[in-house]
Amino acid sequence: MAYTIGIDYGTNSVRSIVVRCSDGAEVGTSVFNYPSGEQGILLDANDHNLARQHPGDYVEGLETSVVESIASAKVVDSRFSPDKVIGLGVDSTGSSPIPVDSQNEALSSKPEWRGNLAAQCWLWKDHTSAEEAATITELGREHRPQYLAKCGNTYSSEWFWSKLWHCLKVAPDVFDAAYSWVELCDWVPAILAGVKDPTQVKRGVCAAGHKAFYADDWGGLPDKEFLSLLDPKLADLRDRLYEKAHDASEKAGELCDEWAGKLGLPGGIPIAIGEFDVHYGAIGAGVDEGTLVKVIGTSTCDCGVVSASKEIADVPGICGIVKGAILPGYFGVEAGQSAVGDIFAWFVQRVLKGDGDTHIELTKEADKLKPGESGLLALDWNNGNRTILVDPLLAGLLVGQTLHTSQAEVYRALIEGTAFGARMILARLAEYNVPVDRVVCAGGIAEKNPMLMQIYADITGCEMLISRSAQTCALGSAVSAAVIAGSEKGGYDDFKSAQAAMTGLKDISYKPNTESQAVYNKLFALYQKLHDAFGGVSSEDLGNVMKDLLKIKDEVRG
Amino acid sequence: MAYTIGIDYGTNSVRSIVVRCSDGAEVGTSVFNYPSGEQGILLDANDHNLARQHPGDYVEGLETSVVESIASAKVVDSRFSPDKVIGLGVDSTGSSPIPVDSQNEALSSKPEWRGNLAAQCWLWKDHTSAEEAATITELGREHRPQYLAKCGNTYSSEWFWSKLWHCLKVAPDVFDAAYSWVELCDWVPAILAGVKDPTQVKRGVCAAGHKAFYADDWGGLPDKEFLSLLDPKLADLRDRLYEKAHDASEKAGELCDEWAGKLGLPGGIPIAIGEFDVHYGAIGAGVDEGTLVKVIGTSTCDCGVVSASKEIADVPGICGIVKGAILPGYFGVEAGQSAVGDIFAWFVQRVLKGDGDTHIELTKEADKLKPGESGLLALDWNNGNRTILVDPLLAGLLVGQTLHTSQAEVYRALIEGTAFGARMILARLAEYNVPVDRVVCAGGIAEKNPMLMQIYADITGCEMLISRSAQTCALGSAVSAAVIAGSEKGGYDDFKSAQAAMTGLKDISYKPNTESQAVYNKLFALYQKLHDAFGGVSSEDLGNVMKDLLKIKDEVRG
Repeated sequence: MAYTIGIDYGTNSVRSIVVRCSDGAEVGTSVFNYPSGEQGILLDANDHNLARQHPGDYVEGLETSVVESIASAKVVDSRFSPDKVIGLGVDSTGSSPIPVDSQNEALSSKPEWRGNLAAQCWLWKDHTSAEEAATITELGREHRPQYLAKCGNTYSSEWFWSKLWHCLKVAPDVFDAAYSWVELCDWVPAILAGVKDPTQVKRGVCAAGHKAFYADDWGGLPDKEFLSLLDPKLADLRDRLYEKAHDASEKAGELCDEWAGKLGLPGGIPIAIGEFDVHYGAIGAGVDEGTLVKVIGTSTCDCGVVSASKEIADVPGICGIVKGAILPGYFGVEAGQSAVGDIFAWFVQRVLKGDGDTHIELTKEADKLKPGESGLLALDWNNGNRTILVDPLLAGLLVGQTLHTSQAEVYRALIEGTAFGARMILARLAEYNVPVDRVVCAGGIAEKNPMLMQIYADITGCEMLISRSAQTCALGSAVSAAVIAGSEKGGYDDFKSAQAAMTGLKDISYKPNTESQAVYNKLFALYQKLHDAFGGVSSEDLGNVMKDLLKIKDEVRG
Repeated sequence: MAYTIGIDYGTNSVRSIVVRCSDGAEVGTSVFNYPSGEQGILLDANDHNLARQHPGDYVEGLETSVVESIASAKVVDSRFSPDKVIGLGVDSTGSSPIPVDSQNEALSSKPEWRGNLAAQCWLWKDHTSAEEAATITELGREHRPQYLAKCGNTYSSEWFWSKLWHCLKVAPDVFDAAYSWVELCDWVPAILAGVKDPTQVKRGVCAAGHKAFYADDWGGLPDKEFLSLLDPKLADLRDRLYEKAHDASEKAGELCDEWAGKLGLPGGIPIAIGEFDVHYGAIGAGVDEGTLVKVIGTSTCDCGVVSASKEIADVPGICGIVKGAILPGYFGVEAGQSAVGDIFAWFVQRVLKGDGDTHIELTKEADKLKPGESGLLALDWNNGNRTILVDPLLAGLLVGQTLHTSQAEVYRALIEGTAFGARMILARLAEYNVPVDRVVCAGGIAEKNPMLMQIYADITGCEMLISRSAQTCALGSAVSAAVIAGSEKGGYDDFKSAQAAMTGLKDISYKPNTESQAVYNKLFALYQKLHDAFGGVSSEDLGNVMKDLLKIKDEVRG
């Protein structure tokens, strides 16, 4: 009997699970909430765009959550013992780069940088680097169109180079003090492996390829000439980053004695290469060619794979197509919506000043409404549009309200808006021949909101399957650990067999209702009109409205 | 010492005031809430567009409110006695046509029609007749463009012929049973004068000209040939309506003995011609050439006058330009917004499920925000657009919301939306040379919401003056009564001298703030873009979005 441990760094907490390799049973679990800031996030009252995280929380959470998950596994599964753990896997949010010193220690672990927001981990949802992203996009289009082609032709403020460049501009002292920068999903495996030199950290191609313009085609990271166009200091930094990034066929390292001791696990067991949460989540949900995995939570990520033996076109507006990013031997295709659950939470908490009960009540009311009955239509851009417009400066829109429009009608319209956004992504994938034969959903919302899932089925016209595991990200990390450990140790020799044994679907699924589909098709045509107009596709004039509002807002706020 | 009584039929209640002619002091007042339906309005749970009122409530309210206002005047002003009342004036909402029998009795006063919604007064805000309005507009454009030119080229579902035609279609029994139809503002003076034949009711040119296509130019009401295009029964009805409508230089009649007895007033005193509430409200607020009166309440009406000796062009989108509609000897120019306070009430009551305190709190919060700071922009069309698009099928729109947008930001954006709508009207008037040198505001909101008034000043760039009287409509009716009584009786011989003595301004006014104006000018440019796109001026595609949503809604609701 063999076990692996999957460690999943989310936005507010880290979760460890102990998984039985034979059947994927999750026999131990523990969640550690990051203690710093607000729900684990360091904020700046003067800048809504800022979101940082204290790397010390990651280290503390690593030890606590793994130790506790092992303790709980001992209770649940009498056959379990720590010496049967054959590997570890780690996933995290991203791009969440951490400035480190030459010993791979987080800069913020030093007293002089502890209180400096720029010296922390730059959390994925930090949007302070919008200007830098826009300039990188411009420069990329002019000088290195091949870089941009792989990320939907627009570089994001959430990504690696935007963040590093912004740090260089607003906190040059931090930038100069950092010997290197490491993505959170690469940094934790390196900690476990005892890697004391950031240039020796085994970087995953997932983070590198999706967020840092890495590709073997052009020799790894962007060339120095291009980086010099941004700032010569970024070109200098390139030498202290990495030459090569790896897919999950390679291990990130082996568990070092120090951490083996801390965790009570056998030293020397392999640690899987780090990937972003949704990518390992896709594996944990059973991603395969033709299977799109939707992780639906505060935001949404859609992951698919296409065999690396095929030609795959660059798909405009799809954030990333990276070889090996999810499964070795496949192109990973990632799309997503910048806010889904966050929009409903905004409406309930910020607008209605309600709580969890309000969600339940509104869901009950909204469920009674027929498609189209409210006369409302919403754009799901309250946090920008990640796919397919790749524009963080876009904003929300609601149209059709009368003097009779109710709370529940608005709530349902917001849900429908996110489903229309999901359909736009599916349409774009179909247009560029990324095969989607089935959709498997994972994440808290997919688990808990049957109304939303039915709306998604009705609007997309796709049956919505649900991943068996509620913790697909951590499970995917554990699957990757089982593969890197190999069948000889009780794991697997490839992902297909590991996924077949360790992942699965729930019995329930949501099938499109023909009548609802007919109404939603009409509404979708209207959604597309608004999407194209305000997204600047069909109307330059209206395409600028949201941005002009933002400009005025920025000017007024000074 | 002479007094007149002004009687103002609002949407939920009727108010009577006793006014001293020498200085306009309101020495007696009483409000009677209509007892039937919901806040006086008969609704239909299955049709949000329906709004009717029981004419019996008007008669009961007439006696009660006048008698009580006289009683209160006796207490307040020791010099007052009922025999010093030299005239009565009546104003009401409109177009609010009442089906009557050949004795001028409301059809609904008969037991067999009492419970029939179609046999009641069709309240101004009844929107069941949208289809008829659209067809009248079409037929008018083709066959009688001169009719349409006077009402902004679009006939409204709120107006006389739309309502009568709709009644004919959906309740032919009621239509057939009605000998004639009388506007509420004409019906009440006729009741007071004891007129027992609807064809003998002295009709005001205000209701006739604004809502029933009446003009001396083409011989009164629409000709039978045109009415036959709608329905031959409407052409037949023409004979039982009226040949001639009158301005306020003529009286509607003299107080009959029956009602003199009921009210305790001298028989034979003159009754002013009936006008719509906002028109007499404009007089009560001091309307004059160059002075625009804005009555800001649940909806908004803007009234101006232009000397009848001048040429006045038809102004596209302005609901009505009618000679004598407000002041004798002047063109009355009427514009308006279908919902203003109603939009704020919708947001607070329907969306937030709040109350009066919520309004106060939100106003306090919203007042702290700077113009442009929220990044939000709203179209004020939750109840359609009366001026300048004249389209009841348009709906609300909110754009710019993020995950941080607050309650108070939305509330302020809705207020700003209505102010941008007000600016569109001013811009249209200016474009067609209707002079506006000063703006006098009246109505509940103008009185009670300094934040809103400042926003209106900042957005329109006009100083906002406030009418001294809180009851400008009733006061205007009393002014008209004083003029019809004449100086010999203690009244006045013309409106100019009556207004000079009886109306005035408050000390407070709201002047535009230059800095705010600069920001709002930028936002107004964006408002115009949305207005023109969704109003169908600049984009046919987006101009249909709100209507398509409505079509889908109607189809789904069946």
